[in-house]
Amino acid sequence: VSGGVPDRRACVARDLGDPLAQYRERFLLPDDIVYLDGNSLGALPAAAAQRVDDVTREEWGRGLIRSWNDAHWISAPQRTGDKLARLIGASPGEVVVADSTSVNLFKLLVSALRERPGRRVVVTQADNFPTDLYIAGGVAELLGVDIRAVDAGDVEDALDGDVAVVYLTHVHFTSGVVHDVARITRAAHECGALAMWDLSHSTPVVAVELDEWDIDLAAGCGYKHLNGGPGAPAYLFVARRLQDSLGTALPGWMGHADPFAFSPEYTPASGIARHLSGTPAILGLAALEAAVDLWLEADLVDARDKATALGDLFIDMVTERCAGHGLEVMSPRHGPRGAHVSLRHAEGYRIMQALIARGVIGDVRPPGLMRFGFAPLYTRYVDVHDAVETLADVLETHAWDREDYAVRAVVT
Amino acid sequence: VSGGVPDRRACVARDLGDPLAQYRERFLLPDDIVYLDGNSLGALPAAAAQRVDDVTREEWGRGLIRSWNDAHWISAPQRTGDKLARLIGASPGEVVVADSTSVNLFKLLVSALRERPGRRVVVTQADNFPTDLYIAGGVAELLGVDIRAVDAGDVEDALDGDVAVVYLTHVHFTSGVVHDVARITRAAHECGALAMWDLSHSTPVVAVELDEWDIDLAAGCGYKHLNGGPGAPAYLFVARRLQDSLGTALPGWMGHADPFAFSPEYTPASGIARHLSGTPAILGLAALEAAVDLWLEADLVDARDKATALGDLFIDMVTERCAGHGLEVMSPRHGPRGAHVSLRHAEGYRIMQALIARGVIGDVRPPGLMRFGFAPLYTRYVDVHDAVETLADVLETHAWDREDYAVRAVVT
Repeated sequence: VSGGVPDRRACVARDLGDPLAQYRERFLLPDDIVYLDGNSLGALPAAAAQRVDDVTREEWGRGLIRSWNDAHWISAPQRTGDKLARLIGASPGEVVVADSTSVNLFKLLVSALRERPGRRVVVTQADNFPTDLYIAGGVAELLGVDIRAVDAGDVEDALDGDVAVVYLTHVHFTSGVVHDVARITRAAHECGALAMWDLSHSTPVVAVELDEWDIDLAAGCGYKHLNGGPGAPAYLFVARRLQDSLGTALPGWMGHADPFAFSPEYTPASGIARHLSGTPAILGLAALEAAVDLWLEADLVDARDKATALGDLFIDMVTERCAGHGLEVMSPRHGPRGAHVSLRHAEGYRIMQALIARGVIGDVRPPGLMRFGFAPLYTRYVDVHDAVETLADVLETHAWDREDYAVRAVVT
Repeated sequence: VSGGVPDRRACVARDLGDPLAQYRERFLLPDDIVYLDGNSLGALPAAAAQRVDDVTREEWGRGLIRSWNDAHWISAPQRTGDKLARLIGASPGEVVVADSTSVNLFKLLVSALRERPGRRVVVTQADNFPTDLYIAGGVAELLGVDIRAVDAGDVEDALDGDVAVVYLTHVHFTSGVVHDVARITRAAHECGALAMWDLSHSTPVVAVELDEWDIDLAAGCGYKHLNGGPGAPAYLFVARRLQDSLGTALPGWMGHADPFAFSPEYTPASGIARHLSGTPAILGLAALEAAVDLWLEADLVDARDKATALGDLFIDMVTERCAGHGLEVMSPRHGPRGAHVSLRHAEGYRIMQALIARGVIGDVRPPGLMRFGFAPLYTRYVDVHDAVETLADVLETHAWDREDYAVRAVVT
C-alpha cells in the first residue's frame, strides 16, 4: 500500500481473491487494452460469439425458414425476456425483448398516457438521458400533453393530480447517481400516476427489484452492462396487474394473438407479447440471450458489490494520484452509484484521447466529462490501478496537449 | 420436352445457359433441399456469414466501442440505405435502414398524416398485409383518423379531398399481384394525397423506381428477397422534396442533428437521418449490407426476368403435372407478378408438410394457400422441375394424408 490506496501488488492480490475472477475468461477481450467502457458497449462473451456463429451458419444457413420453429426463434423475445426478468426482479411473462430502447420508451409512454386519460402531464428529469427527453417531446406533441422537466431532487414536489406518468432513468448516464426508485414510485402511485423507469444504465450491475418496488413500466438497453452486442435489441417490462388493460400504439403482427392466422383484424396477444410489433431481430437476440445466460450464472450480489468496489478504488486512487490537475469527481463516493464514474476536466476530451492512445478506453460526454465503467465480470482491480496510473502520467506529462487529440470523432 | 413443359434435362440445360447461374455458389445453401421460401426468409449469402463473423469477433470483440468510428458502424444505416437506394430507383440520401418494417410504417404514416393536416382518411387495401393494417389501425386510433379499406381494384375510386395518404403494398403477399404504383401514385397526387408504399415483397425482385414514379414514402423488409437474415433491420424512404418538412413521431437520439452533443433539446438531423430513432442493430445491419452488396453485383433486369421465368415454369408445370387434384393457381400467369406463386388446395397445410418432409420448402398462408418463392440468384430451373414432380407425387399418392401433417406448427 502506497499512501492510502493499494499498490499494484495489492490489486493483483484482490483479483486473486475475487469470487468473480473466473468470469473474465468467459469474454473474448483483447490483451493490450484496459477496457472501461462496458457502460456504453459491453465486451463480447465467448458464448455470444459462438451463438451468433451457430445462428448464422446453422440456423439461418441450413435451417432456413424451418428455424422459426425448430430453433425456437419465434419464442426468443419472450424466452430471453423471461431470463432477463430474473436479473431485474420481475416475474416470467413481464419482460419481452423488442426494438430499441427509444422505440420501447415511445410505446410504453403512449400506453401509459392512455391508461390515465384526463391527466395531461409527464414528469421527468431535466437532465434525463437525451433520447428519453426527445421521445417524451415526440409523445407530448403527438398526444397534446405537457412535459414537466425538473431537477432530480424535485421530482416528488412536481407530483399532483394532473400527472399521468413519472418517467425517469434509474442511474444517471454521466454522474451515476441512483434514484430511490421504490420511494418515487410510491409517491407517484399516491398521486394516481404511473411510474415508468429507464433501466439502461442499471441492469444488471445495480440492484433492480421491479415487482418488489411495484414498478408499473420499464425499458432498458441490451448492449451496455448486459453485453448483448452493438445495437442489441432492447427490452420492456409491464407489471402483470396492468397487462390486460394496457394497449399498444404500435400493434404489429408479432403482437397479435395469432400472428399466423393473418387476420385483417387486430386482436392483441394476451400478456406482454402484445408489446412486440415487427419481426424480432434474431441475430441480435441470439447474442443477447447468450449474454443474459452468462449473467444468470453469476452471483448478482457479488457482481454489484464488485462494481461498487472497483468504482470506489478508482475514485480513491484518482483522488490521491491525480490531485492538483484540475480533475473533479462528478460521481458520488458514498451512497448508491451506478457502475461508472465520471471525472470532469476542461480538457476532458483530449485527455480521453490520450488515454485511448495508451490503451485505456473510456468515453467522454459534454462538457468535458470522462466516463469510466467498471464491469464486474471482466474488469480487474489491477485494471483500475493501471488506468489511474496511466491517467496520472497523462496529466503529469501533459501528454494530452497534442493537436490531433482535439479532433473530435463522430462517436465520442 | 414431355407434353408442353420442359423435362428435367431441358431444365438443366436452361440452368447452364442462365447468366445468373454463378450466383448460386455465393450462398451457403444445404444440398439436400429445394428452397422455395426466399420470399419469407432469403438464403444466407456466404459474404454475410463472413461479415457477421468479422463484426462479432473483430469489430465488437477486439475493437469494442472504438468500432463505432473505426469500423464505421455509426454510418451503417445511411451507407446501407444509399446502397439499397440503387436497388429501388432512389437517390443517395433518400433511404435509411432502421427498426422493423412495422415500426417504419408507423413512423411514416404518422408523419404523412401530419403533412396533410385537415385530411382525415387513410386509403388502404382490405387484404393488405396484416401488419400494415394493424399499424394503420393503431395510427388511426392515436390520431383520430379513419381507415378506408377497399378492394385492390377500387383504390382510385376511393380517392377524394379527405384522403391524406394512400397506403398500399406493391406486391401482394399471397397472390403476388402487382399494383401499378406509378398510376395510383399519380391519382393520389391529383387529389392532394401522399402515396406510401410497402415494398416488402418487391425489393429487389420486382422493378421499383421510387424517384421516377414520384413516390412520397416507402418502407420495406430486409429479410425476404434481400437476403438480410432473420429479423434483419428494415428500411424506409422519404422523397428528397419532402425531407425538410416531414417530421418524425419517434425522435430518438440517432435522429438528432448532433447525437453526441447530448443536448436536452431535440434538433432533427437534416435529410433522411431524422427517421432513425434508437441505436442501430449492428449485427443485423452487417448481414444486410453484405446481402445488398451481393445484389448490387447482379444484373437486376436479368434477376427480375429470371424470377418471372421460374414462376411461369412453375405455373405451367403445375397446370400440366398436377391437374385433377383440386389445386388452384392463385397468382397471375400473365401480366406482372411478384417472385412468388400461391396455389390453393383444401389440404394445403398438410400438402406443404408432406413437401417439406421431402425437402421441398415453401410455406402456407390461410386459407390453404401454399406459397412458393423463386429467388433468381439461387433457385435453378431444375429446382422448379423437382419441386413440381415432388408435389405431383405427393398428390398422386395422397402422401399428405397423415395425422402428423395436420399438427400445426407455430410458424407456418
